[in-house]
Amino acid sequence: MEKEVVIIGGSDLGISTALRIRELNKNIKPLVITNNNFPNFSICGIPFYISGEVKCWQNLAHRKEDDIRNKGIELLLNTEVTNINHQEKYILIKEKDKKDNRKKIFYNKLVLGTGGKNIIPKIEGLGLPGVFFMRWMEDAINFNRYLESNKVKDALIIGGGYVGLEMAEALVKRGLNVTIVEFFDNVLTTVNRNFRDMVKNELEKNGVKVITSTAVKKIEKEGDKLIVTGNNSLKEKVDTIAASVGTEANTKLGKDIGLKRGIKGAYKVNRKMQTSIEDIYAGGDCAETLNNITDKYTYYALGTVAHKHGRIIGDNICGLDKEFAGVIGTQSIKLFDLVIARTGLSEEEAVKNGFNVKTKLLESWDHKVYYPPVYKMYTEVIIDSDSRRILGAQIMGNKNAEIAKRIDIFAAAIFNKMKTNDFNQLDLSYTPPLSSPWDPVQMAVQEIEK
Amino acid sequence: MEKEVVIIGGSDLGISTALRIRELNKNIKPLVITNNNFPNFSICGIPFYISGEVKCWQNLAHRKEDDIRNKGIELLLNTEVTNINHQEKYILIKEKDKKDNRKKIFYNKLVLGTGGKNIIPKIEGLGLPGVFFMRWMEDAINFNRYLESNKVKDALIIGGGYVGLEMAEALVKRGLNVTIVEFFDNVLTTVNRNFRDMVKNELEKNGVKVITSTAVKKIEKEGDKLIVTGNNSLKEKVDTIAASVGTEANTKLGKDIGLKRGIKGAYKVNRKMQTSIEDIYAGGDCAETLNNITDKYTYYALGTVAHKHGRIIGDNICGLDKEFAGVIGTQSIKLFDLVIARTGLSEEEAVKNGFNVKTKLLESWDHKVYYPPVYKMYTEVIIDSDSRRILGAQIMGNKNAEIAKRIDIFAAAIFNKMKTNDFNQLDLSYTPPLSSPWDPVQMAVQEIEK
Repeated sequence: MEKEVVIIGGSDLGISTALRIRELNKNIKPLVITNNNFPNFSICGIPFYISGEVKCWQNLAHRKEDDIRNKGIELLLNTEVTNINHQEKYILIKEKDKKDNRKKIFYNKLVLGTGGKNIIPKIEGLGLPGVFFMRWMEDAINFNRYLESNKVKDALIIGGGYVGLEMAEALVKRGLNVTIVEFFDNVLTTVNRNFRDMVKNELEKNGVKVITSTAVKKIEKEGDKLIVTGNNSLKEKVDTIAASVGTEANTKLGKDIGLKRGIKGAYKVNRKMQTSIEDIYAGGDCAETLNNITDKYTYYALGTVAHKHGRIIGDNICGLDKEFAGVIGTQSIKLFDLVIARTGLSEEEAVKNGFNVKTKLLESWDHKVYYPPVYKMYTEVIIDSDSRRILGAQIMGNKNAEIAKRIDIFAAAIFNKMKTNDFNQLDLSYTPPLSSPWDPVQMAVQEIEK
Repeated sequence: MEKEVVIIGGSDLGISTALRIRELNKNIKPLVITNNNFPNFSICGIPFYISGEVKCWQNLAHRKEDDIRNKGIELLLNTEVTNINHQEKYILIKEKDKKDNRKKIFYNKLVLGTGGKNIIPKIEGLGLPGVFFMRWMEDAINFNRYLESNKVKDALIIGGGYVGLEMAEALVKRGLNVTIVEFFDNVLTTVNRNFRDMVKNELEKNGVKVITSTAVKKIEKEGDKLIVTGNNSLKEKVDTIAASVGTEANTKLGKDIGLKRGIKGAYKVNRKMQTSIEDIYAGGDCAETLNNITDKYTYYALGTVAHKHGRIIGDNICGLDKEFAGVIGTQSIKLFDLVIARTGLSEEEAVKNGFNVKTKLLESWDHKVYYPPVYKMYTEVIIDSDSRRILGAQIMGNKNAEIAKRIDIFAAAIFNKMKTNDFNQLDLSYTPPLSSPWDPVQMAVQEIEK
């Protein structure tokens, strides 16, 4: 078999690459190979399936299989790619359910979108029944089935990052008692220190027990229960455990042929998303990504990044010669009634990158206080005090306070390397129920200028 | 009396100028003179007082009188400025309640923030009791008193612009039957044609009767009722009328001394907000304002603009030598459950300014459809098809769909003269309850690139 474009991986990177190719060139029918039966699923949506807010896992599909095929994309599901031969430009595949059916597929361009994999902490007993890692649809379906078919009352979550917190909310909504155990001294260490305590409060207000500065060491079975022990005299007796302590790149295929790899094993790519071997592209969670502010490569396992990578790969495969501008670390999470969002560099990252950092945290209302209901919000701005360039921003507040799209005003400003004075000249929208004559994002920048 | 800085007008322009001066130079105590007793009121909030959502008009004050004075700003309330002598650099004032007490106040710098005034349509009977124009706090208080002390059931609004629509919602919330009469062929003609029908539907869904393409000609008293007649056989019998057909600049003072004026009688100013006479600045609704995209002067009677003008005037009075970058026409309105927002040039404005215009309207969900509740939103993008520069955007959708701050992403992009390709590289925030891996604003730009 010979294909113009072969894409390994049918998650965000794979499908966005294929869709972009189809938009640009109707003569190419990209082949997307997935090692599961869940192409183009929104794995970011898994917590909302576990919570019961999404009733049916099928709804998590960005697109249905037929929609993908109808776009002119070929799909090969449940199929493992076992080898790449880059000299002769073919891959070997193995359909999972069948024996001894290795097939060769020649490619002209190969795209690696094999995604990330869970970092496995050094904890005894992770293989016990009732212990789950959350990444792919299978994990979600298995976990949900476990919750449905067992008398699960008490759950423990290892890791207080984005996924851990979303899973905590999900399990609370499902009626469980939830404990989070976090190795670092607070949850959500990707946001600023002031925010972490407010996030912890929001968790506790909603009945989540939060244990910090504590490493889980061992999980044991005791009757129907799982006993979790660790340092700081940790001892919790629970019915199930969900672990999420981070992501690293899934890059075995490329490693075997000597593709250059970097942070967390991720493929090194240039601004065209090309790997170190000709005609092989990589993107998404299996590749490094450029940071637009620092101009250095880093690793973000995020759907937004994968979609951007995919679009650029599609552009370049179709001859548009596009360069990836880099991302700036924008992230948001809804946690119960709170939204926490960040963009650009955190204070720590900015210091580490040699900037002469100044920060300011503004507490404000989200809109004119006379129009009820009104919400408190907190905006932190991080600037380079030499050039007055805005380097980063973090905002936290009620889920009705348009926090997520307010951070995007900063994202657009930072991408354009705006300085504080120019930011104050931005013509932002105002009506009393939704903002103030100066939006809080501008008030925060004015505060830092005082 | 001699003052370093005298500011005529205590609304947005006056107070923001004074506050900025105090931030920068504690030695200057600006004197703010107002012809009423309501300094620093949020007149944008008047509809929410009329609706009853703001219980008490005093709450509409951005700051209380004492707060202003405590910032080191002198206030002279209820005081008319009758003349400016720019050769000798003084003004003449008259306290309203007193007779024959004209006083001279010498200034070093004079700031004109006299605001706008209502455009008075040619309609007979506008002076009848029960007919109101909405602009200042006195208007709101008088109108509210009228509504409270008369048996008002049926109201008619002349003018279907921003204020007219907000007043319509306010009066519906107050339990009245409301009719809007609009001269043009639809309401809210400042937004794109597709949106206007949806806005009209939202009004009608909420019980507002909307009459378009109709000019009111005459208002007559008949018993307790007002009879409104006009062309297209208009005949409505109502208890009260609120008129709002537009704003022009209130510039009598400057006219008397030959200050250059332009659109709608507004003072001509340069980028430093200086008028044609030395040491006299003007801003807010009494001055023209620069459009950042067209680089031409125009007239926007908006609080956001006045605040920006005030800050620049304060900067320049304190020697910072700042230039106003210009605004781009960003506006938003909440109307019942809808938010409608615009920024940059409309299609018509873009064509008029000689651009080779391309537009696209995208219908999308505000966030991942699997996470309920989800809202439809409509995003129109206007680009210059030669340079691919984004010239404008308009978004409409449910009030929970973060429409207002989504328009601000475009506002930041347009201010930075971004092209479609760069816009797609923006790193915007995503979490399933609040957006998609490509935010709808980016999807809309991708649609126009297809």
